[in-house]
Amino acid sequence: MRILGIDPGSAATGFGVVDSDGGKLVHVAHGTLRPPRNSPIPVRLNYLHDAVARVMGDYAPDTAAVEQVFVSISPRSALVLGQARGAVLAAMSAGGAAIVEYSASRIKQAVTGSGRAGKRQVQNMVRRLLELDRLPPSDAADALAAAICHAHAGRLGALALETASRSRRSRRPALRVRRAR
Amino acid sequence: MRILGIDPGSAATGFGVVDSDGGKLVHVAHGTLRPPRNSPIPVRLNYLHDAVARVMGDYAPDTAAVEQVFVSISPRSALVLGQARGAVLAAMSAGGAAIVEYSASRIKQAVTGSGRAGKRQVQNMVRRLLELDRLPPSDAADALAAAICHAHAGRLGALALETASRSRRSRRPALRVRRAR
Repeated sequence: MRILGIDPGSAATGFGVVDSDGGKLVHVAHGTLRPPRNSPIPVRLNYLHDAVARVMGDYAPDTAAVEQVFVSISPRSALVLGQARGAVLAAMSAGGAAIVEYSASRIKQAVTGSGRAGKRQVQNMVRRLLELDRLPPSDAADALAAAICHAHAGRLGALALETASRSRRSRRPALRVRRAR
Repeated sequence: MRILGIDPGSAATGFGVVDSDGGKLVHVAHGTLRPPRNSPIPVRLNYLHDAVARVMGDYAPDTAAVEQVFVSISPRSALVLGQARGAVLAAMSAGGAAIVEYSASRIKQAVTGSGRAGKRQVQNMVRRLLELDRLPPSDAADALAAAICHAHAGRLGALALETASRSRRSRRPALRVRRAR
């Protein structure tokens, strides 16, 4: 089973791909998607959408795991994060993977044994578990951690956000439009 | 000049298209995009993205106007609205239109003369200004109102969210990926 982990953010969206073969985890790829800094918001969102679509196309994951948003942030931050998540989730869904969500504490627990682990601890444990030759950057480490969490949990423990059919055509939007006479 | 107004929402996204020819406004189309109700969130977001992409393709607007979010809502609501806006704005940007943003009060002011007008007043005035044979639904009326507001303001008064070049290819994301050895 190939799992894509994604950590959506407006400035940086981390992703990580792992193969789970029985109990064994194999690192495939990870990276950070950074929209051009000074571009207008819609351009940045479109960049994220296209970049995630390319990751989905390049790695063809069976399942994609994202971190649940714990809404203790301000409405303004929630809006900004929500916009990035919207662009990212739309592209993930278009790619046809089933999408599952885990809480941040569950993800930390899965990789470090503690739901309150710090960023550095997560990076270190992700590096060890996947036998990487160096520390993955923080956003990518979080994404890899989400993928590892799902590999451990299997399909069952997850809050399934989606079980998308791969036939996307059938869901083409039927617009109801009133045209000018 | 062809203007697309969009009123993004997770349950219903309104859109409206008007042509502005000198001082004259001509209604082209309006409608409401409704993602399938019981589908998972990513599927709904992808539906919105694709539906807006189709509207952009069908009507090829020069400019697209959206309402600014006035963040007096809860973080949870801001996240949900943000996700819908993210999917919608990404598709608008991909379509190559310049995107402008107006406050809700400015839009109401432009169509009714009062920044505090109610939904029904907006619907009534949009109907009159565009000589529609019946009242447009609320979400579509808000979208048409945003388009009318931009037609009145011209390009100047707007807070430009974007001046997108139409050559999208050049903005293809360059991914930085660490692959497995």
